[in-house]
Order: sequence, then structure tokens, then C-alpha cells
Amino acid sequence: MKICGFLQKNNNLEEKISSFKERSSKDLLDNSDRDSRFRRTETDFSNLFARDLLPAKNGEEPTMQFLLEVVDILTNYVRKTFDRSTKVLDFHHPHQLLEGMEGFNLELSDQPESLEQILVDCRDTLKYGVRTGHPRFFNQLSTGLDIIGLSGEWLTSTANTNMFTYEIAPVFVLMEQLTLKKMREIIGWPNGEGDGIFSPGGAISNMYSVMIARYKFFPEVKTKGMTAAPRLVLFTSEHSHYSIKKASAALGFGTENLILLSTDERGRVIPADLEAKVIDAKARGCVPMFVNATAGSTVYGAFDPIHEIADICEKYNMWLHVDGAWGGGLLMSRKHRHKLCGVERANSVTWNPHKMMGVPLQCSAILVRERGVLSGCNSMCAGYLFQPDKQYDVSYDTGDKAIQCGRHVDIFKFWLMWKAKVIVVLDMTDLSMFCCLDLSHYLYTKIKGREGYQMVFDGEPQHTNVCFWYLPPGIRDMPNGQEKREKLHKVAPKIKAMMMESGTTMVGYQPQGDKVNFFRMVISNPAATRSDIDFLTDEIERLGQDL
Amino acid sequence: MKICGFLQKNNNLEEKISSFKERSSKDLLDNSDRDSRFRRTETDFSNLFARDLLPAKNGEEPTMQFLLEVVDILTNYVRKTFDRSTKVLDFHHPHQLLEGMEGFNLELSDQPESLEQILVDCRDTLKYGVRTGHPRFFNQLSTGLDIIGLSGEWLTSTANTNMFTYEIAPVFVLMEQLTLKKMREIIGWPNGEGDGIFSPGGAISNMYSVMIARYKFFPEVKTKGMTAAPRLVLFTSEHSHYSIKKASAALGFGTENLILLSTDERGRVIPADLEAKVIDAKARGCVPMFVNATAGSTVYGAFDPIHEIADICEKYNMWLHVDGAWGGGLLMSRKHRHKLCGVERANSVTWNPHKMMGVPLQCSAILVRERGVLSGCNSMCAGYLFQPDKQYDVSYDTGDKAIQCGRHVDIFKFWLMWKAKVIVVLDMTDLSMFCCLDLSHYLYTKIKGREGYQMVFDGEPQHTNVCFWYLPPGIRDMPNGQEKREKLHKVAPKIKAMMMESGTTMVGYQPQGDKVNFFRMVISNPAATRSDIDFLTDEIERLGQDL
Repeated sequence: MKICGFLQKNNNLEEKISSFKERSSKDLLDNSDRDSRFRRTETDFSNLFARDLLPAKNGEEPTMQFLLEVVDILTNYVRKTFDRSTKVLDFHHPHQLLEGMEGFNLELSDQPESLEQILVDCRDTLKYGVRTGHPRFFNQLSTGLDIIGLSGEWLTSTANTNMFTYEIAPVFVLMEQLTLKKMREIIGWPNGEGDGIFSPGGAISNMYSVMIARYKFFPEVKTKGMTAAPRLVLFTSEHSHYSIKKASAALGFGTENLILLSTDERGRVIPADLEAKVIDAKARGCVPMFVNATAGSTVYGAFDPIHEIADICEKYNMWLHVDGAWGGGLLMSRKHRHKLCGVERANSVTWNPHKMMGVPLQCSAILVRERGVLSGCNSMCAGYLFQPDKQYDVSYDTGDKAIQCGRHVDIFKFWLMWKAKVIVVLDMTDLSMFCCLDLSHYLYTKIKGREGYQMVFDGEPQHTNVCFWYLPPGIRDMPNGQEKREKLHKVAPKIKAMMMESGTTMVGYQPQGDKVNFFRMVISNPAATRSDIDFLTDEIERLGQDL
Repeated sequence: MKICGFLQKNNNLEEKISSFKERSSKDLLDNSDRDSRFRRTETDFSNLFARDLLPAKNGEEPTMQFLLEVVDILTNYVRKTFDRSTKVLDFHHPHQLLEGMEGFNLELSDQPESLEQILVDCRDTLKYGVRTGHPRFFNQLSTGLDIIGLSGEWLTSTANTNMFTYEIAPVFVLMEQLTLKKMREIIGWPNGEGDGIFSPGGAISNMYSVMIARYKFFPEVKTKGMTAAPRLVLFTSEHSHYSIKKASAALGFGTENLILLSTDERGRVIPADLEAKVIDAKARGCVPMFVNATAGSTVYGAFDPIHEIADICEKYNMWLHVDGAWGGGLLMSRKHRHKLCGVERANSVTWNPHKMMGVPLQCSAILVRERGVLSGCNSMCAGYLFQPDKQYDVSYDTGDKAIQCGRHVDIFKFWLMWKAKVIVVLDMTDLSMFCCLDLSHYLYTKIKGREGYQMVFDGEPQHTNVCFWYLPPGIRDMPNGQEKREKLHKVAPKIKAMMMESGTTMVGYQPQGDKVNFFRMVISNPAATRSDIDFLTDEIERLGQDL
């Protein structure tokens, strides 16, 4: 009986592999009818349901078949993602997707669907999504599809564990510890000493920095609340990420006590403005506590002058946080790390490997120079989780440092990419991601002075952000003034909408201060080449021609 | 030339598939030498590096080979996870893993490692980890390895996008919206109206509830900070999750302004104690603002009496939050949902499908009855992300409601599981996860009154938590008193340590209040059976025999 079972499984697998072989060979020779052939598998999933999978009795065979089928869908998607003949997206309005697309129904059903339908749902979910790894997707700071990182994330999902204790995540906890230490060494803190944790995104990392700063200066706030502290004020650039403002609201400071700093034309904080505002705040009876310096601003890619800001922080005894969510990756580059000069003087640093370093979402670290404050700030010593009488060294149970309880494993993909791609400190020349900076230089050089383009600020961009207006022929010769501004303001949204409808490429736009809508090109995908940059400008000109 | 390339690729794939076929057939017949055969693949990964993968020229073939190889490792792991002849873990102390285990080196290298080494690293990472999906892993509230959920998570990683805008996550944003609505309907809010968001874990969901409550009653705190409000107090059970305390510290209330409520012997809040403490707080000039009722406490699995708490909240105009992180799943069960009776009166609810419902980590929702307050509380209207002049209905850009900026896609796996497993409202009988409650009843019945066992509280557990002491023969007949307490306190940690060293099973323990260390058995893995429960008690008795 048992042998029968094995033989039967084996036969099925043989069939499956023949089918897989046949399909895969065809796939390589002919992409066109892959979708229609999808249903022609030897395993009939139409009569199989989730309940037939493991842990069901005899569930192993259908489980393996099902997972291989899912992998087939995913590997086809990966292949297409890098294929420039595919679209970046197949745009539909919300109401269209909600109404249902040819058998793809988002509504939650009342009866269990067959595994065949589940596979169709998987395929359709990808079909109507956005290929963020496509070489012509420039819409976000996080782009690309790193194969090692992807493998790491598949493994992480399969391990399905939680970072709170060494007990259930021994390997991952140690990987996190070693990687954070390496990151602190790269920042320049002596011997990589300090502390840190991976958090669910840069906004939460920045929130941590404010919490820790408050704990350092006013530890009694933890127990007594904000009323135990004087009126505290925080400082950040008017170009900084909105998460600092979110943190000031959430943590009980109030957004009015977050003082925005003026910047120069390139979007960099003017240190003298910081000092003036610190003095002014003190004169009003407030206590300046925290300064955020941005290393790689969201729109302009600007790097605030950290050394000059650090001098002021020292002088007035304020916490210096460096938000390197976007620019932190450049610390790994000999050529570009000077842009973060002075970062070693920061008390805390946010650094998102899921941005410039191409790690799959989410992967963000908050790093702290002084050991103890992160734990002191957050620990509550829950007895059911952090028992002191375990058989191992419980200093490895790092969960109590977090504001989370359960914490997703974000470290493995990053650790694996580091191992696979070598991130030798201060010698990053063979890391493909830094080609992105060369590409943005190429774009800048190409459009600077080109007819119909106007740069938002003068000079070479500091990061891969290239900000520019495209002026359609009909607007170019208009006299400067309100009418031209109003027309120009509408150009980028219109071009973007047409791009999305045609699905050829995606790039961001926004207004900034009194500047009307402009394009913000960012490059963080190592798959992008000069031809993709050329494609983007051609597309902007093609679509914008008649506006 | 192009044809040559295709043919060559094709040949390689043929070889690969032959090898795959050979290996897979053998795997099914013989598990024992799988690891040693691992290196015998036709593709020689020892000379391939990350730089040879996509987007490299000719990178498609090695990419597919590499991904299939990773999948082979993962599917073997899945198979073994459900195999009771495998260990739950292969325990090593931190210093052992840090020193390196037979070719598994956690240190980050200076030179890129070959893909072969990367594959070995993947295998070893799983080898030294903990099988949280193993039928005998009872250590956490989140256990199990759901195949549909796993597939969903693999797809999510491959799509690698971000929840902040419809623009780049159209399908996922809609899935989230539809699923949250369904969850609100199940809670019992009229027409499923309200709001909500998936957050990175129950602790953050609970933090949201406190923030939203504060915004509802004192919206000026957002701009002016906590000094704009009177002294606010919060209430929660002494048995509640520590995240409420973390939130009170982080958000600027102070832990001293979180008032702990007494519970009955079963760990349920005593409503009269709440009312007394509210009156007392008011008498001290404080403003009672927020009450957390726990639906499924972490240790006892207790459900606070929501209706009686809701009456008091209404009477004193306080926000009622229900922390159903652990117990929320029971809302889907006709048989068990009465334990959350009154939940529809809550202003907000935390519900973690990654716990009782078996969704892979992380999947937690915060649900809010009143529309508008979540957005009002958190929105900052960042121009670069939430442009009002997009071509689609921007009310679908939900990111500004979050305290995060980037937000991981946690919805897809849950949506897919829902589709595959039918979660028909109020008729959950064929959902295997609810067998867990029957199993805990089996355990309770088995050990209640059994020699050597003592229940921590009397009566049938409300959830799957079964809390008990095991008294080794040498302790059983000791007179009650300090010496017995001290000895008993050491029993659970010792047994747990031996369990982990032998790798056979895992179960949690902790003290609670003045109660010495006891075991907290929880069952949330649909793969567990009565034989696994029997195995656990046998193992406790075997290991504890001579203590």
C-alpha cells in the first residue's frame, strides 16, 4: 500500500515533468501562446481544492504540483519583467477592476474555489498589476527585481517565523545582528558599536529616531508622558520626508512643534537658518531637541550638509538624526559616500536597503550610535515572551527593543544579497546599482539645454533624482506668467496619464513649493540602461507633442 | 545567432529537466541522501555569480535554473515540515552558530560568493532554523504553514510593490479594501461601513487605535501636541498584551497613565473594577479616554466581557478598542463567535489573520467603525506621492492613512486563502483551523485531574490556550510552600530546554502575576492532531520524570 502510493506519486510526477518539459521548451521558442497553453497541464486542478493540500492525507503530491505550477507562473513573470517588449502595466480604473475582468473577480466568494481558479487568480493578479522591476519603471525610489533578493524572500516566506526571539529565529536574529554591525561600521561608528533594528519602512525608522531622542533627553516621558517634559521642538528641512511630520503628530509633539528649515536652491538645508530657528525657539521658551538631516531628499535627491548641522547640534545639545532612507546606500560607494560626509557624527541613521540597494520591499534599518537607549526606550519585559530563565544567552532576544511585537524577517534577503554581491566596504565599483548614478548623469547631460526641457534646479543632481519640466511646443514660446504656469502645471499629469494608459513607462511628478508640476526621474533599477533613458525622453516628447 | 542562443538555452533546459526529473523521482523514493545529492546538479553553479543573473545579458537561463534550484530547496523544506519524523529544530547556542557550522558562515564576506555557495547558505539557513509549521510546534500564537498562503507570499515577493498608491498596486489596494469591508461586516458594523488598514503586526494595530481615539477626542493634539490635551488616561487588563503599554509610552501618554484593570480568576476584566477606576481617575482630575478590551489574551486566552465594558465606555464617553489580535479569528466561527459578543459596539478592532487564521506572517488589520478619523489622524498630504491631479479616482490612494510611507503588501495571501478556503460568514464548519479548538478541548480533558498536572485556572479554556503546571514525581508530594514553589518554578524552563535540545517539540511557558512558571499550550496549526497532543504530554512526562 505504501509502495503503491509512492509509485503512483512517482508516475504523476513523471507526467508532470514531461508536461513541464514540453511547456518550458515551447516557452523559450515562442512566448505568444503561453497563456493559452497554461491550462494544458497534466494535473487537473479543477477538482482539487485547498483542503486536498498538506496537511491533508496524501496531500504531498498535489501540494508539490500546485507549488510548481505557482512557480511556473512566477518565473514567467520574472522573465517578462526583464523583457522590454512587455508593457510596464496594463492600466485599468478602479471601477473597471472592481466590476471584474474576464474571469478575474476580486470579490470574496462564498464557496471555496478550485485550485485551478486560484492559479488563474494568481496569474491575473500579476497581469493587472505593475511591473516594478521593469527596466522602464522609474516611478518610485524602490524599483527593480533582484533575483537573489527574490530568492531570499521566497525562503523567508517558507520559514514563516518571527524576529522577536532567538528561540524561534536563531539564524535570522544573528544575521540581523551581524548585518547591523556592518552597517554601523560603514557609517563610521568606532568598531561598529551601537544598536539598531530593522523596521517596517523608513517612516517607522524615522519615528524610532524621534522616540529614542526623547528618551535620551527626557526618559521620564516614558512613564509620565509628554507633560513631564518642557515644550520640545524638532527641526527638519522643508524638503524632508513627510514621515518626520507624521512622527511629530503621532508621538505627541504636535506638527506645530516641528520647525521647517529653509533650503538653498538645490534643496539642501541652510545651516544658518537652523541656528537662527534654534535661537528663536529657545527665546520662546521651547527646548530644541532633535534635528533631522536628510541624506537624499525624496524629490530633489539633496544631501543636507551634515557636518555643519552636527556642529549646531553639538553646540545646542540636540539629537542629530540622518534620514538616509534614500541616500544611505551611497555609503557603500567610494565614489559617492562623500555626499554623506559627517554621518558618523549622527546619533541615529535611517537607511533603507530596499531603495538604492535594490533589496525587495521591505528592508529598512534604524541605527543608533549609543547602546542601550533603544532598549531603554521601548522595553516592557513581557514575561511570556522574554523569559529570563531560558537556557541560552537571552541578550539575543532582541524583540523587546521594538515597538512591534511580531516582526517580519526582513534581514535574510539583504544578508543573502550582501553575500552574493559583495559589498566590500569602500570598494563598491562592481556593484551594478551604482550604474544608476551614471545613468542619471547621462539623463541630466542629455536634457540640460535640450529644446523643450527646463531643469528645476541648476547643476548636477546629487543623487539619481533628475527634476525637470517638459514644455510642449505650444507652451515654449509663451511669455512667462500665470497663464504659462497654469498650462505647464497640467503637462506632467497629462503625459503621465497617457504613459499609464499606454503602459510603456512610468515616472513620477509633483509640484514643490511654488514650482508647478515637474517630472522627478529617479533611477534605482540596475536593469535600466541608456536605451531606457532615451525611451523615456522619446516617450515624453511623443506624448507631450500636442499638449 | 539569435536562433543559436535559443537552441543552446533549450538544450540546457532539457538537461536541467532531466536532472530535475531524476532527482525528484529519487527524492520521493528515498529521503535519506537528498542532501548529499544536492550538489549533483547538471548546472554548475560554482562558476556562476549573482552578476550572471538577470538583468545580465544571457541571464535568463541561469536565472531560471537558479530559481528552480531554490524552489527545490524550499519544496523539500515544505515536505519535511509536515513530516513528523523530522525534528522541529536543531538547536544551537548563539556562540555555536556565530562560530560557524560545517561550511555555514554567517559572517558577511568580502568577495562575492558563487551561486553554489548561495544555495548552500539557503539550505543551511533552513537547517538551523525552527520549523514553525511542524505539527509539534506549539510555541507561538502564529504557527503552521499554509500552502495557499505561502503561494500568495511568493507571488507578493515577486510583484515587489508597495501599498501606498493605487498607481503602483491597483489590484492589491482593491483587494485590501474589499477584504477590510468583509471583516467589518463580520464584526457587525452596518453594511461593513468604516475604515481600516493592514499594519505590520498587532502591536502597531493597537498603537493605531490609541492614536485614532486621541484624534477623535482631541484633534488639536495632532498639531499642538499632548500639552493641548488634559491629562488623559487609558485602561487595559493586567492580562492584556504589552503593546498597549508600548503605545502609551510611544505616543506620549506615559505608562503611568495606563491603568491596569483587575481580572477574575480566568483572566477576564472585572467591569466593576473598570468603572471604579474611571471614577477615581476623574476624581484625580484626569480624563478617561480609551479602554482596551482583550478578545483572546496572550497567556490565558481570556475574552473580556465586551458588552459590559461597552456600557461603561458609553456612560463615560470613552473609546472602546477590542484587541482581537489572537481571538478575532473566532468571529468567523458560528460556534465560537459568541465569545466576542458585543464587538460590534467597539470603536476599533485589532484582528490578526496571521494568528488563528493561519495566514503567513505578517497580516494584521486595524478596523475602525467611524469613517474619516483614521485619515484625519494621519494624513499629511505629501505632494510627491498623493497628487490630486491623477487620472484615476485618488480616493483609492490609501497610503496617507498609514503611519508608514512604504507599506508591504500583506493582503494578497489572505485574500487568496479566503478565496481558496471559503470563509462564508457565520458558517465556518469546514475551516480546518477551528479543529484547533477541539484539540485544545482534548488536551484540557486529558490533563485535567491527571496525576502530575495542575491547571492554572479552573474550567474549560475560552480559546486554544491551555495553561498548566507539570509536577515531576519528586515535587508532587511536597507540602505547599515556598520550597515547592521555587522547585516548581524551575520545572517548565528545564523541560523546555531539554525539548529544544532534543528538538522534538516546542511549547511556551511563563510566570503570571504571583504564579510560578507554567506551560502555556496554544494550538493554531491545522496540521496538529490528537497524536501530537499525546506526543507533547508524553514528552513533558518523559523529560520531567527525574526533575
